[in-house]
Amino acid sequence: MNKVTFLGGGSFGTALSILLANKGIEVKVWDRDKAVVDDINLNKKNDRYIKGLNIPENVTAYNDLDRALEGTECVVLAVPSHVIRLVCKSLKGRLAEDVIIVSIAKGIEEGTDIRISEVIEQELPNPVVIMSGPSHAEEVAVEIPTTLVVTSKDMNNAEKVQDLFMASTVRVYTNDDLVGVEIGGAVKNIIALAAGISDGIGYGDNTKAALMTRGMKEISRIGVKLGGKIETFYGLTGMGDLIVTCTSMHSRNRRAGILIGQGKTAKEAIQEVGMVVEGIKACKAFYELKEKLDICMPITDLLYKVLFEGKDAVQGVKELMSRDKKDETY
Amino acid sequence: MNKVTFLGGGSFGTALSILLANKGIEVKVWDRDKAVVDDINLNKKNDRYIKGLNIPENVTAYNDLDRALEGTECVVLAVPSHVIRLVCKSLKGRLAEDVIIVSIAKGIEEGTDIRISEVIEQELPNPVVIMSGPSHAEEVAVEIPTTLVVTSKDMNNAEKVQDLFMASTVRVYTNDDLVGVEIGGAVKNIIALAAGISDGIGYGDNTKAALMTRGMKEISRIGVKLGGKIETFYGLTGMGDLIVTCTSMHSRNRRAGILIGQGKTAKEAIQEVGMVVEGIKACKAFYELKEKLDICMPITDLLYKVLFEGKDAVQGVKELMSRDKKDETY
Repeated sequence: MNKVTFLGGGSFGTALSILLANKGIEVKVWDRDKAVVDDINLNKKNDRYIKGLNIPENVTAYNDLDRALEGTECVVLAVPSHVIRLVCKSLKGRLAEDVIIVSIAKGIEEGTDIRISEVIEQELPNPVVIMSGPSHAEEVAVEIPTTLVVTSKDMNNAEKVQDLFMASTVRVYTNDDLVGVEIGGAVKNIIALAAGISDGIGYGDNTKAALMTRGMKEISRIGVKLGGKIETFYGLTGMGDLIVTCTSMHSRNRRAGILIGQGKTAKEAIQEVGMVVEGIKACKAFYELKEKLDICMPITDLLYKVLFEGKDAVQGVKELMSRDKKDETY
Repeated sequence: MNKVTFLGGGSFGTALSILLANKGIEVKVWDRDKAVVDDINLNKKNDRYIKGLNIPENVTAYNDLDRALEGTECVVLAVPSHVIRLVCKSLKGRLAEDVIIVSIAKGIEEGTDIRISEVIEQELPNPVVIMSGPSHAEEVAVEIPTTLVVTSKDMNNAEKVQDLFMASTVRVYTNDDLVGVEIGGAVKNIIALAAGISDGIGYGDNTKAALMTRGMKEISRIGVKLGGKIETFYGLTGMGDLIVTCTSMHSRNRRAGILIGQGKTAKEAIQEVGMVVEGIKACKAFYELKEKLDICMPITDLLYKVLFEGKDAVQGVKELMSRDKKDETY
């Protein structure tokens, strides 16, 4: 593939645009914000999202969707998960059916609780590839070694996208567990939020490591019930992405968690972070799912009560610690 | 169990002594260093190892081994792994055969490459319980919520130790996978060292998360061959302990890795850290094992070459990134 269109000129989209452009790919970026488009075209910068970075000559930005899609072989949806459906609707009738759609969004759709690839498939007939993994855009942009994972119903398409993004500083793995990759990417934010709360309370590395490990355990438990593979939850798109989220202040989920641990309500934390906090939505969705499927998920339980029922987080952790003695396997 | 003896008044032994003493247990601590013994007995402090902390009245320290063992029901070996055999030899003929030996050391014995529990069994007829998990002593001592795992050939004994250490801020799980717990605890230091090197080079969260995730993958691969269970490697004593090690400057392995990443040789790093760096020994042992068993372990390979053959770490990471395309499962 030689011509790729990014929908959304945010930080991750821009980082990946630069990566592809440096490989000689003709890159078009569509963004609804004229200031972003002008900054890319006139200054070869995108200071609003990735400050200071130079954008190669072979990246061109557009406000006009049709022009951005002209001749494209691959469309990368670089928009937040809650606008994926809207963006797909706007693509209807504008794309040849063999153009591959790549999504880098993480999360599940509010209301329907379906995965991103399912949302795209409901709106478009095109092949869908999901790309995920432990990857802060800020680091990809400055060529820090990074791993990614691609998955799809048709692994031939995933391999095409693997070839597209493979580079000297980006290593792309394939994984045929579409369900596991998507669910892991969405629910790791629940645990990142819980880990943030622990940090906000002032607990230590011991507590956070325990929450992350036991959290992934309960999340892989429900993930397997939903059709994912256990190895995927412990791979780059699950545990790997959780690690990167929990050790970084780039993460909105972690930042929101810290604020809640310091005594703010979930609502106040969302306002202060000023952006969508995927983990809060994911917590609600997975709490409801786990009640329906009757799965033991004590950390998700506690987080739900802290977020939606005003439970005190410190008291909650005390209760977690004093549960019945257990074997680690359960 | 109401009477417990700690052999070794280091930081972890002291932290656990305080924990048990606060539960009303009669605690005796043996240390060869008279200054430590005096500090505990006279000042109710152990400032050399855990500065500023108060030690309860019911902790008594001894230089004399026989007095420290008088009436004991449980002996906790709180010494580094390389002196375990020596300490066990000194216990010969001094203990009733039903006294439980608990080891909190991580590593494998140099030269023999056997596990700590095997070393103890070669020297003593007593039941052995291994305790492990993500637990900085400094945090256990100040009652930060912490999880631990106990394992044994006879799980009845593991459960006794679980009951002994369970407390409001310490949650102890059982796990019957003795081999997996011991191997995971030893080899996670290999990955901690690699993650430290990545930090030392100046790579980012993306790189570290990738190294940790792919590293655990290759380590669980050899661990399963050696008889451990995959879930154990992804549990508290494997991944959990790795997370705590990789996010903390308390870890000697991580600190040594950072120095190597900054350009020091392995020898210089060991000198500067000034203590045993388990990961370096573990890397050598597991490199040899993997060669014998013919298992693909690219991160361990690279680390071995950096540590023992003077390979440049940055060049090594470049080679790791440019290996043949792979499926994540392998």
